[in-house]
Amino acid sequence: MEAGSTKTKRTRVRRLPKRGHYDRETIDAILAEALVGHLAFTGDDGQPYAIPTLQARVGDEVWVHGSSASRTLRAVGQGIPACLTVTLIDGLVMARSIFNHSVNYRAVVVLGTARPLTDPEQKLAALEAFAERIAPGRWADARPPTDQEIKATSIMALPLDEASAKVRTGPPGDEDDDLALDVWAGVVPFETVRGEPVPDPRLRPSIEVPDYLRNPGT
Amino acid sequence: MEAGSTKTKRTRVRRLPKRGHYDRETIDAILAEALVGHLAFTGDDGQPYAIPTLQARVGDEVWVHGSSASRTLRAVGQGIPACLTVTLIDGLVMARSIFNHSVNYRAVVVLGTARPLTDPEQKLAALEAFAERIAPGRWADARPPTDQEIKATSIMALPLDEASAKVRTGPPGDEDDDLALDVWAGVVPFETVRGEPVPDPRLRPSIEVPDYLRNPGT
Repeated sequence: MEAGSTKTKRTRVRRLPKRGHYDRETIDAILAEALVGHLAFTGDDGQPYAIPTLQARVGDEVWVHGSSASRTLRAVGQGIPACLTVTLIDGLVMARSIFNHSVNYRAVVVLGTARPLTDPEQKLAALEAFAERIAPGRWADARPPTDQEIKATSIMALPLDEASAKVRTGPPGDEDDDLALDVWAGVVPFETVRGEPVPDPRLRPSIEVPDYLRNPGT
Repeated sequence: MEAGSTKTKRTRVRRLPKRGHYDRETIDAILAEALVGHLAFTGDDGQPYAIPTLQARVGDEVWVHGSSASRTLRAVGQGIPACLTVTLIDGLVMARSIFNHSVNYRAVVVLGTARPLTDPEQKLAALEAFAERIAPGRWADARPPTDQEIKATSIMALPLDEASAKVRTGPPGDEDDDLALDVWAGVVPFETVRGEPVPDPRLRPSIEVPDYLRNPGT
């Protein structure tokens, strides 16, 4: 592995290597923008699984929330190899030829062995990280976890030292011979937006939507 | 496996089983709405990988496009076990307690052994399926693939007979004791929208954005 880089023989992007990035700035930005990743692991029977899970980077690790994937975490918690992939879809690349159609995307692949967080203070820090990922300001507003709830929380940490980003941006890569065709070409951007908050039917009528949910990120 | 169902010992949703669905109607609708899935497989060295890839259901199979994942396809094409997971994020579930925060989502997990498509007619059908997934109407408009381009296309087919869907919908599941808290609770919906098409800088000026890109799905 190169010093200061997350590039290893396993993370090196082999196909279209110009799309590969190994700097933490690129990797961290993608992890910060996506909420959910897919955690891959191999079961006892040799069957691979990919399970969606909330993720949050804390320092030089990605922390993965386990409430939706106890099977995942039981397996990964034994210290078996895992892969966390986090993908953002930015747009559809419409080429003049069917063959050159593509997708603009930013993806991070983290390889490594996950360790379970066992220290209650760290688990509390992880719950704070997840809450603040979902909506900055939420941690201070909602009821804090009890000791029992912290105990019931499973968090896995995956180190970031073997990671790669793969990024495609920009217009289609049509062949020169196709440029004269009478076909529109370009990119249709994709964006994920947050809609108007929908109150819980059991919400007490006097409680207003907090500002941090009305204007996320501001 | 039950008749008419995709439920097996491996696909049965063990945690929160009320979220599990095994009917093809639920599974097919999720596959139809998502463009990209994550294909998991185990490398020769025992390292699992999850690779993002375009997916399209055709009949009783999911077809996975290989242009972005040749390493994936070389491995999976040998007939090793694979898992395709397709996830839609529908909203953030804001509970009164930190512990009960959640995500509304719809996910499909397909387990099986993938086979490569080798018949050029089938590969052509797959390219049509992918183009029409991206933008209905595109197939008839863009330049069709040449024999050489079809040869250069890798498509894998994964049968749908071992698949499950997992769905969370609705408001937060707060404890009764928390309902009196002065904390807003509900769901912040997520939606992926298509933005205004951005023309290729090399686009000839007379070519207008086609209607099927301006008004997707109509």
